[in-house]
Amino acid sequence: MSDPISGPAPSSAPDPGQKLAQDCAAAMWARDHAAHALGMRLHAVGPGRAHLGMAVRPDMVNGHRICHGGLIFTLADTAFAYACNSYNANTVASACQIDFLAPARLGDELEAEAQERALSGRSGVYDVTVRLRGGATVALFRGKSHRIQGSVIEPPQAA
Amino acid sequence: MSDPISGPAPSSAPDPGQKLAQDCAAAMWARDHAAHALGMRLHAVGPGRAHLGMAVRPDMVNGHRICHGGLIFTLADTAFAYACNSYNANTVASACQIDFLAPARLGDELEAEAQERALSGRSGVYDVTVRLRGGATVALFRGKSHRIQGSVIEPPQAA
Amino acid sequence: MSDPISGPAPSSAPDPGQKLAQDCAAAMWARDHAAHALGMRLHAVGPGRAHLGMAVRPDMVNGHRICHGGLIFTLADTAFAYACNSYNANTVASACQIDFLAPARLGDELEAEAQERALSGRSGVYDVTVRLRGGATVALFRGKSHRIQGSVIEPPQAA
Amino acid sequence: MSDPISGPAPSSAPDPGQKLAQDCAAAMWARDHAAHALGMRLHAVGPGRAHLGMAVRPDMVNGHRICHGGLIFTLADTAFAYACNSYNANTVASACQIDFLAPARLGDELEAEAQERALSGRSGVYDVTVRLRGGATVALFRGKSHRIQGSVIEPPQAA
Repeated sequence: MSDPISGPAPSSAPDPGQKLAQDCAAAMWARDHAAHALGMRLHAVGPGRAHLGMAVRPDMVNGHRICHGGLIFTLADTAFAYACNSYNANTVASACQIDFLAPARLGDELEAEAQERALSGRSGVYDVTVRLRGGATVALFRGKSHRIQGSVIEPPQAA
Repeated sequence: MSDPISGPAPSSAPDPGQKLAQDCAAAMWARDHAAHALGMRLHAVGPGRAHLGMAVRPDMVNGHRICHGGLIFTLADTAFAYACNSYNANTVASACQIDFLAPARLGDELEAEAQERALSGRSGVYDVTVRLRGGATVALFRGKSHRIQGSVIEPPQAA
Repeated sequence: MSDPISGPAPSSAPDPGQKLAQDCAAAMWARDHAAHALGMRLHAVGPGRAHLGMAVRPDMVNGHRICHGGLIFTLADTAFAYACNSYNANTVASACQIDFLAPARLGDELEAEAQERALSGRSGVYDVTVRLRGGATVALFRGKSHRIQGSVIEPPQAA
Repeated sequence: MSDPISGPAPSSAPDPGQKLAQDCAAAMWARDHAAHALGMRLHAVGPGRAHLGMAVRPDMVNGHRICHGGLIFTLADTAFAYACNSYNANTVASACQIDFLAPARLGDELEAEAQERALSGRSGVYDVTVRLRGGATVALFRGKSHRIQGSVIEPPQAA
C-alpha cells in the first residue's frame, strides 16, 4: 500500500485532511535522505498520525549486539515528524522522551505508530509506540512538536 | 589521540579506573557497528564519562534539510553508553530524554560529552551535551541507565 | 462511588484482580497524608489503572495566579502510584515526565486518569491524562515505575 | 539571608541583572500561595538561577511513609519557576522531567538549586538538583520553559 521511495499511494478517499497529510508526507519523503539511508518504509500517514517500518540491519547493532537504541529512537522520531507535519505547517521536534522496554535484534522488523495526543497553538504532543512486527513493544516515545514558519508543500496545493 | 577503529589509545596514567574505562570502551568499540556506520569518533573516555564526535553527512539530513534529530540523539546515546559502561558492568539505557535547541546542518561537526550525574544501586543518570564543534549547543540529553548481568570485558582484565 | 477517607467502596464484582487493586488502594489511601492534605478524591482503581480528582484551592495557586504545576504533577503522580501499586507489590516512581498543555485555575476540578502502558519484569510505564472535569486536557504525564521489596497489604489478603 | 514572607533581602550589589532577578522573585513570592502553603523558603535568586528549601512535614508523606514524589517535584518546579522568571519576562513551564534517586523522609530538609542550561528565543532549559541538606541527591529535574506575554513586575522597575 506504500512505496518506500515515493511515499504512500494516492488515496481514493476524498477526505481533504487525509489527502493533505499524504501530499505532505510525499514531499518530505522525497528529500528524507536519513530515512532512506536507514531503509525505513512509510506505511501510512493521516492527519496527526503516521506508521513506519524499519528492519534491523547489521550496521544498526551496537556493542551489546542488539539494535542501537539511537536507531530505534530515530525510527520513532521519524514517525513523529510525519505525524506532526501532516497539516502542511512546518513543524520540528522540540523535545522527545523514550522508554526502552525490550531489545530489538538483527533481522527484526520494527514498526512505529505515531498518534497525536494534543495540539494547541504552536505546540503538540505525539505518542509513538515501537513494536516488533506482530510482537512485543520495544519502546514508548513521546515527542513535543513546535510549529515554525513555512509550509511543507510550497505553494500549498489546492485540495 | 583516539583511533576510530580500535578505540582510545592506552593511557600512560596508572589510574586503574581510567584504564578500565578505556579497556571497556575499546572492547565495545570493536563491535559497535552502528557507531562505525555513522562515522562516529571516540575522542576520550573515563570513569562515568565519554566524549564522541560525528560529522553530519548527506545521508543524515531530513525533510527539513537539517540533520535528523534521531541521529543527534544517536550520537548522544552512544556517548551515554560509553560513559555508563565504563566500570565493566553491562549497562543499558532504560529511558532517555532530549531537548533540541538548535539545528545541525550538512557538514557540521558534532561533539557529544557525557557526564555521570548520579549512580546508585543498579541505576544511574547521565547528562550529555551535544555541541557544534567550538560553537552552539545543539541538544541536551539525559539518560537513565540500568545495570544488567555480565561484564563488558570477559573475563575482566587485570589492571 | 468512592469515599475520600476510606477509599473506594468494596466492589460486588468477584474479579480477584479488581478486588486486590481496591484492597491495595484502600490500604494506601488510609495512610496517604499528602493526598488527603491536597483534598484529593479516589474515584476508582483497577488492575493497572486509577482515577483521582482534586479541586484547585486558594493555597494551590502560584505567582501567575494559576494552579501550581507541581500540584498538577502531584495529582498525576498520585494516580500513577495507585495504578502501579494495584497488584500488591510495593512499587515506586523512578522517573516521570509531564507536558503542560493548558492552565488550571482557582476552583477548577481536575481529574487524573492513569493507565498502564507496559509492565515487564520490575519496570512499568504508565500514562496519566489530567483534564478539567468535562473539559480541556491540562497535562499529559508519563511515569516509569520500579518494583521494590514488600507488598502493599501485609499479609496479603485472601480473595 | 532570605525572608520566607517577603523574599530575598535587597542586595547591596549594583549588578542590574541580579537586582532585577531579586525584584522579580519578591513580586512572585508575595503572591505565591502554593509555595507558602508548603512552607518553602526562598534562599537566593539570580539571573537564571534560584535556591529554595522545604522541610518534609507530616502532611507531605505518602502511602510508603516517605515524602510524596509530587511534592519533591513541586519544590524543584518552584525553583525552576524563579530561575526562568528572573529576567522579568513572564515564563511558564512547558514540560518537566524528574528522576527520583533517593527517598526523603519526614523531617528531612530539602534543598533545590535551579540553574539555566540554555536560553534561546522564547525557550529555555533549566536543571534543578534536589538534595537533602548537606547530603544525598534526592532527585534530578529538568524543565523546559516557554516565555509568554507580559512581565513579572509591571511596570518594569528602573534599575
